[in-house]
Amino acid sequence: MQRVVIDPSQIDGGRVRLDREQSHYLYRVLRLHGGDRFIAIDGGGRWWLAQLCAEAQAELLEELAVSTELPIAVTAIVGLPKSGFDEIVRQTTELGVTTIAPVTSDRTLLRPSRQKLERWRRIVKEAAEQSERQIVPDLLDPVPWDAAIAAVGEARRYLCVARGDDVPHLCESLRVSSGEAVAIATGPEGGWTPAEVERAIGAGFQPVSLGRRILRAVTAPAVALSIVAAAYEVQ
Amino acid sequence: MQRVVIDPSQIDGGRVRLDREQSHYLYRVLRLHGGDRFIAIDGGGRWWLAQLCAEAQAELLEELAVSTELPIAVTAIVGLPKSGFDEIVRQTTELGVTTIAPVTSDRTLLRPSRQKLERWRRIVKEAAEQSERQIVPDLLDPVPWDAAIAAVGEARRYLCVARGDDVPHLCESLRVSSGEAVAIATGPEGGWTPAEVERAIGAGFQPVSLGRRILRAVTAPAVALSIVAAAYEVQ
Repeated sequence: MQRVVIDPSQIDGGRVRLDREQSHYLYRVLRLHGGDRFIAIDGGGRWWLAQLCAEAQAELLEELAVSTELPIAVTAIVGLPKSGFDEIVRQTTELGVTTIAPVTSDRTLLRPSRQKLERWRRIVKEAAEQSERQIVPDLLDPVPWDAAIAAVGEARRYLCVARGDDVPHLCESLRVSSGEAVAIATGPEGGWTPAEVERAIGAGFQPVSLGRRILRAVTAPAVALSIVAAAYEVQ
Repeated sequence: MQRVVIDPSQIDGGRVRLDREQSHYLYRVLRLHGGDRFIAIDGGGRWWLAQLCAEAQAELLEELAVSTELPIAVTAIVGLPKSGFDEIVRQTTELGVTTIAPVTSDRTLLRPSRQKLERWRRIVKEAAEQSERQIVPDLLDPVPWDAAIAAVGEARRYLCVARGDDVPHLCESLRVSSGEAVAIATGPEGGWTPAEVERAIGAGFQPVSLGRRILRAVTAPAVALSIVAAAYEVQ
């Protein structure tokens, strides 16, 4: 069944007032009619079986019990690559990320426009719907590295470094206990600069490796999230 | 230093005769000159420090000791998606795959042209160079599911299924022992059909989950490879 993200403010007494975009999607794109059903997701963890009734309204028939979220909050701090951030947003959302924190670093050329940010937030929402997430991850405004480090709350902190022959693999470093939060940083093309690595270590980040091969900036976040998700989901 | 894949047949008494494409890349694209060095990779696990000498020739100065390969052979059997196979080829190569076996399944519409296959093989080579692989993975000709199943040699076999609430996570099912081979299959959009799953189980494939969320056909191979690579690299 199709999933549509709604805002909690659209709910009124067991009904959802659909906005223009949602109506277009349900009636025109999916070609549903009055009486047809879909799943309404509030982006905060709740799902309902919904039924289209009057034009631009749907009834919430029953709340659904779902559990597709990781047992921990994961923040992906991502050095903005020259291209490919769409794919990073999509893959980390599919893999259960809670917060995506894009970072402009010494080796990042890109300063994303307001339009780019809006585009990325649309992708987050789409990917959350498609991957059956219960929540829609947050995509923060890009900030410089030091600000991103400073903004990490209480969390285990990992810094993925390339050519990490002398650092442990992320798998070995993850200490899995429920209820905690994880922040994991992956660099832009060319990796973090030595100064950036040093400041991260100073802020409590543990340098880790994602394996012996050199991963592109676009691939590293998905690999890091795959390992974190598997470790916490299987524990 | 730049890496260039050469064919063992190009080596003759400590020298490499560069072909037209390699020469163009080294002299025109990278703008190297006689005396400049690069790394020559034979695609079979050997690396040399090489030095350009006469036009279209390079001297192999010394063999380099590298170890970027997984300790096991991994075959990724991939149901061809409608689009995005370029990215699957790139990411699985970065993650250490040995063989990529594209499969046409009941839900696959795409029948790739000869040009597409050549394109994918170029991507494999590029990604192997960029990720510092010692070998260049094989990309097989696409075959139907039953032929792909039958072609898997001695290997632990895993079939990734979506909505796998009732099957174990790949992490739990992997039994890690060195020297063995692993074959792991991920489906096209819409997943494998029940009949395909049944035939795979009949052929010794164990159904596994990659987590509670629904992954796109493009993301699943990278997630599967991330987990297999980490498990065998860290053991």
